[in-house]
This record gives sequence, C-alpha cells and structure tokens, in this order.
Amino acid sequence: MKKTLTLGLIAIAAAVNAQQKTIIGFTDANATKELQTEQTFDAALSAPRIGENLKELSAFPHNLGSPGSKAVAEKILAKYKSYGLDAHLQPYTVLFPSPKTRVLELTGPTTYTALLKEPALAEDATSGQSDQLPTYNAWSADGDVTGQLVFVNYGLPDDYETLAKLGIDVKGKIVIAKYGRSWRGIKPKVAYEHGAIGCIIYSDPADDGYSAGEVYPKGAYKNEYGVQRGSVMDMVIYPGDPLTPGVGATKDAKRLDRKDATTILKIPVLPISYHDAQPLLAALDGIVAPRDWQGGLPITYHVGPGVATVHLKLEFNWDMVQAYDVIAKIKGSEFPDEWVMRGNHHDAWVNGAGDPLSGQVAMLDEAKALGDLLKTGWKPKRTIVYCSWDGEEPGLVGSTEYAEDHDKELQQKAVVYINSDGNGRGFYGGGGSQALEPFMDEITKTVTDPQTNVSVFDRKRASELVNAGSVKDKKEIMARKVEPLEPLGSGSDFSSFLQHLGVPTLDLAFGGEDGGGEYHSIYDSFDDYRRFKDPTFEYGVALSKTAGHAILRMADADLLPFDFRNLDTTISKYVTELTELTDKMRDNTTMENQLIKANDFTLAADPTKHEKAPEAKAEVPKLDFAPLKTALDSLKKAANGLATTWAAAAQSNTSHDKLNQLLYHAEQQLLGDGLPRRPWYRHTIYAPGFYTGYGVKTLPGIREAIEQRNWTEAQEQIGIVAERISSLAAYLAEAR
Amino acid sequence: MKKTLTLGLIAIAAAVNAQQKTIIGFTDANATKELQTEQTFDAALSAPRIGENLKELSAFPHNLGSPGSKAVAEKILAKYKSYGLDAHLQPYTVLFPSPKTRVLELTGPTTYTALLKEPALAEDATSGQSDQLPTYNAWSADGDVTGQLVFVNYGLPDDYETLAKLGIDVKGKIVIAKYGRSWRGIKPKVAYEHGAIGCIIYSDPADDGYSAGEVYPKGAYKNEYGVQRGSVMDMVIYPGDPLTPGVGATKDAKRLDRKDATTILKIPVLPISYHDAQPLLAALDGIVAPRDWQGGLPITYHVGPGVATVHLKLEFNWDMVQAYDVIAKIKGSEFPDEWVMRGNHHDAWVNGAGDPLSGQVAMLDEAKALGDLLKTGWKPKRTIVYCSWDGEEPGLVGSTEYAEDHDKELQQKAVVYINSDGNGRGFYGGGGSQALEPFMDEITKTVTDPQTNVSVFDRKRASELVNAGSVKDKKEIMARKVEPLEPLGSGSDFSSFLQHLGVPTLDLAFGGEDGGGEYHSIYDSFDDYRRFKDPTFEYGVALSKTAGHAILRMADADLLPFDFRNLDTTISKYVTELTELTDKMRDNTTMENQLIKANDFTLAADPTKHEKAPEAKAEVPKLDFAPLKTALDSLKKAANGLATTWAAAAQSNTSHDKLNQLLYHAEQQLLGDGLPRRPWYRHTIYAPGFYTGYGVKTLPGIREAIEQRNWTEAQEQIGIVAERISSLAAYLAEAR
Repeated sequence: MKKTLTLGLIAIAAAVNAQQKTIIGFTDANATKELQTEQTFDAALSAPRIGENLKELSAFPHNLGSPGSKAVAEKILAKYKSYGLDAHLQPYTVLFPSPKTRVLELTGPTTYTALLKEPALAEDATSGQSDQLPTYNAWSADGDVTGQLVFVNYGLPDDYETLAKLGIDVKGKIVIAKYGRSWRGIKPKVAYEHGAIGCIIYSDPADDGYSAGEVYPKGAYKNEYGVQRGSVMDMVIYPGDPLTPGVGATKDAKRLDRKDATTILKIPVLPISYHDAQPLLAALDGIVAPRDWQGGLPITYHVGPGVATVHLKLEFNWDMVQAYDVIAKIKGSEFPDEWVMRGNHHDAWVNGAGDPLSGQVAMLDEAKALGDLLKTGWKPKRTIVYCSWDGEEPGLVGSTEYAEDHDKELQQKAVVYINSDGNGRGFYGGGGSQALEPFMDEITKTVTDPQTNVSVFDRKRASELVNAGSVKDKKEIMARKVEPLEPLGSGSDFSSFLQHLGVPTLDLAFGGEDGGGEYHSIYDSFDDYRRFKDPTFEYGVALSKTAGHAILRMADADLLPFDFRNLDTTISKYVTELTELTDKMRDNTTMENQLIKANDFTLAADPTKHEKAPEAKAEVPKLDFAPLKTALDSLKKAANGLATTWAAAAQSNTSHDKLNQLLYHAEQQLLGDGLPRRPWYRHTIYAPGFYTGYGVKTLPGIREAIEQRNWTEAQEQIGIVAERISSLAAYLAEAR
Repeated sequence: MKKTLTLGLIAIAAAVNAQQKTIIGFTDANATKELQTEQTFDAALSAPRIGENLKELSAFPHNLGSPGSKAVAEKILAKYKSYGLDAHLQPYTVLFPSPKTRVLELTGPTTYTALLKEPALAEDATSGQSDQLPTYNAWSADGDVTGQLVFVNYGLPDDYETLAKLGIDVKGKIVIAKYGRSWRGIKPKVAYEHGAIGCIIYSDPADDGYSAGEVYPKGAYKNEYGVQRGSVMDMVIYPGDPLTPGVGATKDAKRLDRKDATTILKIPVLPISYHDAQPLLAALDGIVAPRDWQGGLPITYHVGPGVATVHLKLEFNWDMVQAYDVIAKIKGSEFPDEWVMRGNHHDAWVNGAGDPLSGQVAMLDEAKALGDLLKTGWKPKRTIVYCSWDGEEPGLVGSTEYAEDHDKELQQKAVVYINSDGNGRGFYGGGGSQALEPFMDEITKTVTDPQTNVSVFDRKRASELVNAGSVKDKKEIMARKVEPLEPLGSGSDFSSFLQHLGVPTLDLAFGGEDGGGEYHSIYDSFDDYRRFKDPTFEYGVALSKTAGHAILRMADADLLPFDFRNLDTTISKYVTELTELTDKMRDNTTMENQLIKANDFTLAADPTKHEKAPEAKAEVPKLDFAPLKTALDSLKKAANGLATTWAAAAQSNTSHDKLNQLLYHAEQQLLGDGLPRRPWYRHTIYAPGFYTGYGVKTLPGIREAIEQRNWTEAQEQIGIVAERISSLAAYLAEAR
C-alpha cells in the first residue's frame, strides 16, 4: 500500500515505524527495544549539524598528503572523541604524485596553449583558494612528447575497433578521448596498449556541460573551464599504494621500485576542459568522425591524424606522503571480537563538499548519535568500528592499506563493512552482498524520504517501476520478493573488504536529483552543494538513518540477518546471462563469418571511404556450464536448509554464537586464488571490469574470458567458480 | 552467389546479362528479343549527357510559376521532341504563394533581426543568382504576430505531451521547432492545434549541420546560413492545388475561395537557419529542455516561455500561376490504350540540381534511349507515357492536377506508374505495389552497380544484411524469396496515382552515399551535385537502366508481371503489427493506470520540478481482427489460384488481353470511399500519416484510429478494409 501525500510528515513517520514490530534476527522482546533505540538514534541526528560539519570540513583543499588532509583527519578525530568514541589516527606511508610541470600546446597547424586552470568565481567562496591541486590525472607517467593528434571518442576497445575499420592506428600518436562510458583510467591504458605515446581526456559538453544543463555558477553543470581531476592508476590490477601490493604500507613495509609498480601508467595523461579541447579538436582534419562520435562542441569532429600536432609535457613530484585514516570504536559488550564496520573517505581532490564530505558528515552524525546513545546506557553487543579513510581519490589508498595491514584480523572479526561516499538529494541506492537483501529491505522501509514522506524503499520502488522500459520489466519488479542489491565493482572503499577479503559488504547512497558537473573540480564546494545537491541536508540525515539502522541492527542482532537464498538466485541469473552471451556470440560469429565470406561487408561499404571489412573470427565453441548448474543446485539446497535452521534458531533462546560465526564468515568461501593476471581480486562473483574500471563484472573470471574469446580460460574459470560455489554450499550445510 | 571484385566491369556486366534467359511475363522467344532490346537501350544511355542536361537545367532558379520553370518545361519539351517522342505541354492554373514580407525579430530581452538569407559562395556558381525564391514555407498564413517564444523540440504530438507534463502550454505563443522526425508541415499544424499563433522551424546542427559532417562549401552538410524551404500545405488532407480538390485545375475549373481551402495553414510559419535560430534559443529561459531535446548549438536549450519574445510578420503574393506539365508519348503498337507511365518532377525550390533534376535527367536519358530504339524499328506493344511534372514542391501540384483531370482515363488505361525524384550515389531503393516485387527483383538483377560491379540487387541485399540489427533479422532477410518494396506514403508524385486512383505504382531511386544538407536551399546546385552526390553521373545511368527496363518490360510483356501472393503476405504482416500494437497499448495502459493509482509517478518525480503525473486512460478493449483474417485467407487462396492460372497462361499462345486487363486493374479493388476526415485518400492499404506527413501508415484507417485510441472507428475500419480485401480476392478469383 502506498501512502498518499495528503498526510503530514509526523503522521507518516509514525505510521512507518508503527508498521514494524519484528526485526529479522531479533527476538520479539529485543526487537521492541531495538526499535526504541532507533527512535532515540534518529532523534539525535541533525540536518543543520550535518550542514555545519560540511561547511567546516570543505573550507579548504584537503587532498592526500596535504596539510589540509591532515587537518581534516584531526578535526574528524576530535569529533569522534568528543562524541565519546575510542578514536585514533592510523597513518600509512604511501607514494603520491602531484604535478610539477604541466604543458599542453597545439603546435600545428595553428598554435594554442591550454589554460589548464579553473577560474575563481564570485559565486563560489572557496574557488579562489591558493592551495588547490592543479588539474591533472594522478599516476600519469612523466613525459615530454610531441606527435600527431587522434580523436578516439571515449577511448574504449570498441572505439579502437572502429578506428581499425577506418584504417587508422594510434602508434606514436597522442590521443584525445572524451570522459565517460568507462572509468577514466581505462582510456590511457587502452591507448597505451594500442601504441599511443600520450593521452588527453576532456569533458565534452554533450555529456558534461551545457547540453546536460545550465552551467556553473548559473546552474549545476560543467562550465567551459571545469576539469575533472582523477586517478588513472590501473586499479583493476590492484588498488592502494602501488609500491606495496597485498601488504599494508606501514613505515617499514617492503616496497617495490616505482618502475616495477604495474599500476602506474606508462604514458603521460592529462585531463582538460572543453574550452581547452575545442582548439585541438577543431584543428583535426582527415576522416570525419562517425556520427555517434560527434560531441557537443560547435564543430565537425574529425578523427585525424593529419595536420594537428600537440606537445604534452608532464612532470610529477613522486613524494612519499602520510595517509591518515581515522579509526573510531565502540567496544561490543557481548562480542567484542565481532566488528560491525562503517566507512567513508575524507580526502578530496580539492574541497570535496560533495565527494566525499557529504557522506563523511552523514557518517559523523551517526557516530554522534551513537555517542549520545552510549550516554543513555545503551551498549552494542558487537564492536562498532567507524573508519574515515584518507587517500581514496588516488586509488582507495587508505582503506586498502588498512585492509591489507589487518587482513587476518578483518577476515576473523568483520561481520559487515558498510560504505558510503558522496550523497545527495534523490533516491536510495544500495549495493553489496546478496545475502543482505532482506535485511536492507526491512531497513529502508523504516526511513522516511524527506521530500515525499513515504519510505525510501517505496520511493525507490516507484522510481524503478516508472522508469523500467517495458511492461515486462515492470511486472518483474512487481513480482520481486526482495529488492536486489547492486553487484559492486570499484570506485570506493568497499573494494578491499569485499573483493580481497570476502567481508560481507554494503555500499549506500542517496542521489539522482543532485545532477551537476562539479565532480573532482574546484567547484565541488559548499556553495555548490547547498544550492544543487541537498540544500536542506535532509538527505544527509536519510543516509545517517539508513546506514545507522544497519549498524545498530548488525551490532545488536541475536541472530545475524544473512539469507543466502538470494545469493543462489542471483548467481543463477548471472549464469543465464553468460549462457545467453556465449550463444549470442556464437550466432553472431557464424553470421558475420558468413557475410564476410559472401563479400557483403565490402559491398555494403562506401568505396570512397576505404573502410576495411572485418576479419573472420574463430567459431565459438560450446562451453560446458553444467558444473555451475550442479554447484548452484547444491547451493540452493544448502541455502534453503540453512534458512530452516535459521528460523528454528530464531525461536530458541540458546546461544547463536556458532551459527553467527558461520553466517558472517560464509562469503569468504567465495574467494579463490585470484583472477587471471590480477590475483589481488579474489572474489569469484564480483570484480571491477578489466576494461570498465568502476563498472562491475559479475562472475568476472568466466565473463571476461568469454568477452576476450579465450574459451579455454572460460572453461577453466567455470570449474573454479563452480568449485567455490560448491564449497560455500558444503559450508552452509554444516549449519546446525 | 556473390561476384568477387577481382573481375572487371565488362566481364561482370556480361555475366549479369548472361544469367538471364527468361523474363517473367515473356515467352522464351520474346524474352530473347527483350534482352537484346535492353542491351541496345543500355548502350544508348550516357553518363556525360546526363551530366550536361543536369548542368543545363539547373543553370537558373525554376520554381513553379517562375519564368525559369516555364523555360525548363520548354527545354524538356524540346528534348522529348528531339528524341522522337510525341510531346506537349499540359498547363494547369493553380494558386501559388510567394513571399512579399518576411520579418523575424527577437524583441526581448535583447534584440536580433533574423537575416533570412543564404549568402552567395565563390565555390558555388549559381548561388548568387538574383531570381531565387527567398527562404520561406509555402502555404504559411499571412500574419503579423508578437508573442513569447516556446521551444517545442521537433513539434510532434509526443513533444506536446512532454510539454504538458512540464506544465507548459503554447496557447497564444510562438513556437520554435527543429526540422526533422516528421514532414515539416506537421509541425505548424500541431502547433496550431495546440493554440500557437506562429511557428518557426529551424535546422539544428546536430541533425543537419556540423554534427552531420563538414559544412558547405568545404563539405556537403548544411552551413550556418543554410535554410530548408518547403511546403507546409496540409497535404495529408489532399495534395495538389488547394482550390481544386478532386478535380483538375483547368482554366475554368470550379474553385474554392482561398479561405475555404482546408490545406492552407492558419498561422504564419517560417523556416530559418541555425545562425538565425541561435540568438532566439539562447534568449529562452525557464525550464531547461529535457536531455533528449538538447540540440547541437553550444548553449543549454530551454523551453520557455519567459523573457524571450519574438515578432513574426509574413505576407505573401497569393498568385494564380501556370503549372506546365510536359507529357511525352510513344504509341503502343498492339495495345495503345494500355499506358505504361513514367514520371519525375521538373520544378525546384531554387536551382534543384539534386531535387528534382538528378531524377529528371536520368528519365530524359531513358526517353532518349527509347527514341533511339524507335529509330531501329522497335515499337512497344503498349503506349509509353513520360511525364515531367511541374509544381511538385509546393504540394505535388502538377501530378495531382493531371491525375485528377484524367482520373477516369488513368483508371482505365494506366498499367503502372513509375516515379522517381532526386537520385544519387549509393544503393537501389524501391517502393510501391507489392504485386510487383518479383518483377523488380528480376530487373534489379540486370543492372550493374557502378562502384562494385555486382548487380544493384546484390549490393542492396548486402547492405541490408550488414546493417540489420540482429542475427534474427539477418536470417529473415536471407530467408526472403523476394525483396520487399517499401510501402509508399507521400512526398513525391506517385501519391495521386496510387492513393487516389489505385494505379499500380513504383518509386525508384539510388542513394545513401550522397548525404548532405543542400535540400531545398540555394546550394542544391550543379556544383554541389558533381562534388557530393554522383560525381560521375553513373548512378543517373543506373536509375535510367532500372526504370527503363521496367518500362520496356511492362510495355512489351506478353503477360503482365503481377503476383498478388506477395500482397497477401505483406498485408498479413501489417495485421500482425496492428494486433501486437493493440495488445501492447492494452498492457501499457493497464500498467500505467496501476502506477497512477499507486501514486508512483508522483513519487518518482523530482518534487522541485513540478512535473505533472499522467492522467489515467480508458482501458483498451479487445478489437476483433477476425474479419481481416478471414478476408486474407480468401485473398491467399485467390492469389495462389491466380498464380496457377497465370503460369498456365504463360505457356499458351492465346490472347492474354482479358487476363492482363484484370491484372492491372486489380489494385483499384483496394480503393474505398476514402479515409475518415480525408476522403481524397482512397487506398485502404497505404496513406501518408496524418501526423507523420511523408511517412507511410499502412492499413491507415485502422492504424490511425488505434493510435488515436478511437476504438469504435478502429473496429469500423477493420470491417471496411476486410471488405476491400475480400473484394480483391473475389475479383482475382474471376481470372481464367
């Protein structure tokens, strides 16, 4: 039943809470207590305080290694302490490149020197500060290159296939790519794989500028000078400090030579504004870019190479700096060695009001409210750990080094890791371990959306129903018993916990009505945030409630709320996707080979354009997915059996210690020996894509082998994943 | 079997012809003669002459009613005569508005006076001529209006639904719409239906400018000053002279008062360049236009209405002018009262090298080659009629008045009408009566593509296979026994023949590698054509051969090559489409009503944007398509029976007169009493769409009633169409 909007806020909030009497994993008596605790918790949260903290922490630039970052860490430390948490700084010593020389010039047929500078604006109080990091991509190589320019669209593997058809290669050239469609680090990596000697990335106004909306400061969208900074570390190999893969970057850790660090780029790469990109793109000649490569600048985009040449010179300070994670604990009264963890980074590229402080200040308000609860005499059964990470922006550095440093301890103690990052006005969105889906459904029904006064669960579901493309999709949503958690790729601090350690993980945020172009620019400021992101800071409170209730319930549950029946059905869906993908590739390959043989591609092409017909590919063999299906059958049986055991246990008053231990350690059964060519990523179900970056690949070992047409590896990976699923099934079947 | 490209042109041409020994509708002996005739015909065609004629006829502006148009008609007349055809001018007296006053000004918040002028270019020899028609839309109302400006995207019904959701109406406002996505005349008509007082149409550079390709004169695409002239007559009611619907506009014809002519627009409408549009669009404020409304200008597009106001003043000379059709005949030796007709218009908006002269000069070369054949002693069995139409651009005026003037005679005598219009480099494309599909397949296999040296049939099929979206679609194409002829809507001179008189019709052209932005501008010139459209004029020859062979075979066939089995399967496909459309609308309506009731649209909307949720619609009833299915069953039986009769007759030497008469008159069985609210359109299978213009609607009476949710009318129309199909079935069953 949907609520109507005619009821007032208070009436609805009461109605939402009144609905709930039981909680998954709590006895009825404890549920009543827990709901009272949550009411007290909610009452302690404060939107104005969230706004004040946001203003305070975003008042100056605070990138990793800067005095500002240390100052922010110390401010956060002091806040945790003042709230009553047991907090300390946890420093790591990490490599961090900052720019020393940045030159980009068009050298022919005309000349232009790129500004590489975002101007201060009267409407944005912090935009003129002097200690901002300049516009750059961290982990670019040092380099001084001159060469012909080639426009490569978004710079993805498909784009290079198109270039090959057009008879163009980028060997010895400097490429210019649009931001978007992948994580930025993929673009220079793929350019390098194709022989480019330099890479420029720019924000096209069709994607991130005037075509998206009114530009800053009139509106929220990227003005002609705005630049997206960001890391291009090859994070899909391993994240964190490039010199200490797999181990914590403590002072005395054994370190790689910088030249041996595989995640540092081999060519220079620089992000620029569309103001700086236009003269470069306008100078290109040669082949006109395909219709769907044309962007929003008022020119005809060409591919080149031709008369347009550029000079790109970049030098960096390769400094060792301190990353200051802030760790704050509330010791568990019954299970001090079971940790319920919460994290959000505090470092920014510049002032970072949206990214990451909007999530950080919501998290701090949770800590404040928990501190207030402590004062009432409440104590959590399990230890609660709040983590404010440093160095997320350059490559998840603070969280990765902490996780690597504490790997054994975390695999033993961490019940769950709950992440957030930027937050804004709009709809609830959650990702993470499928076994937590019923848990998150229950929680999101307890949080009222600030604008519509229905639960954030109901509002999200309404949006999904309205925006689903077809009646079939809408009916599928209506038929769902639980809302799915999105599978996680990369792009925030959950990565080490989930993909390296197998800790059950959640990633939570609100957004979708907070669009803009401030991301990683000097304009990600308090002035921007309060105008365009969450003017009342009420969505900060909504995040505090959502994550806070999750922390409280996990910390106090009698029986931990994991349900593996959702994992089974979700993996089955992935297997169906892969079966269909392989069948489709087989059909497409057979058909394409047939058309190639009949000369149809040559006949269909414009002979004046000298396009090359594709080359015939090897036919796609049948893969044997049966091992996965067998493993999933046993997982289904075990998950159903466990659910029965769990339900029976929930009715009893005996100790659940052993069952709880089994439940929160289960995800580790899905860890293997690591993905091919990137063993740091051990989770067999989720990983960031080798050619997508942040974007997830589910069943990554199998899926990427199929996408790369490596059929032998695909079959091997089917065996490996099936073995992990079977192992999880056997493990769950142990539950008594 | 596809040909390889290693063989030379001559070898291939010989191979193509050598393959064919039999021709549909010819005895073996006559087929041998016919193939020889076609070889002689082909040898008489000349690409250089096509180029010379193109240059000669495009040397000066020649719009309807101008001295140039009369001069072009007289030149064409002289050519037909010199070729040996019996030619005359056929004049009609028709209304034709030309501009007297054109003023468009931005009056607030800043001022700008639109240039409304395409500049002369050194690279384009005819671009500076003084007697060009200014940029305008014929059949705009006279008007002098000032009002707030509203941007309406493409100005289609869906766009007004989006505006309604945004809470915006255009009553009393002046709208500005992009060209594209519909025939231009739909935009002011829909604007008027919604209460607008004026309409501006502009070419957006994302669709027709620098984003499409290099602009003129550097490339073929529309430069910032280019303007698309064109008619906005409400041609979907009836085409031709607005004052003489249904009758020929002879000197003494009974005429409507201009104010009673329903096809003349009620509001002023003016086309402009993107140079003139930018200041207007940049002045708009208010709501930012939806993402998919944003165009290619370097601004954020807003919807308005707000501060931006414009003044639009238009006055026209409402002159009665002479339209000069040129009619040229070769009398049939056996069946002089069976007419095989060919047509292409000769009037242009300005110089019209591409539109229409590229088709006109190919047609003239056919006439020349037929004249040469006459000199060898060849005589066609049936009368051949070549028609060079005047006044197509303002609204198919010359062809419509001729067809209305000769309606009875044409319905008695016209065996087929074969149309062309603009032509260029690329792929064969054919539309028309489905019963002619095997006929056109056979012909297109006899014409060699100038660039690839395979038949134009094979090249087109290769393109279709390569460009089909899915393996399923490709397999369907491979499984086809005949290539479909596209169903015809409007936009050229075939309309009266097919949709008003039921004459079997074909519309032929080459293109797809001749892109550009010259359409209806001063830059549609010989200089533009020889650079970008068909530099060698070989595709002119390809059109001459394709249409010429069709004319020759129709004129000389022993048994006319109609096969109604293709019509049956095609209509069955349309019925399936409509059944699925209705089912989909029913499902969508039920689902949307359910989401409306649950308040999901309100919950999913951004509350700060004040968007309106849609209103519930009446549920979609079940339509009874059974009458159509029954009728199609009998058509299938009759078409199969006729095919058997036809095949038997082809083996006999008796007279086929009666069967031939039945065959070419059959299409008239599909004429009804006219479509609802537009009785001029009598064909029950094809019509231009009421809200698409040129775009066809198949089974238009039923389909448009469904689209308008008029279920009663849809059911009535099912009955009417079923009755026409049954009638055709009964008619065909008469064949002996």
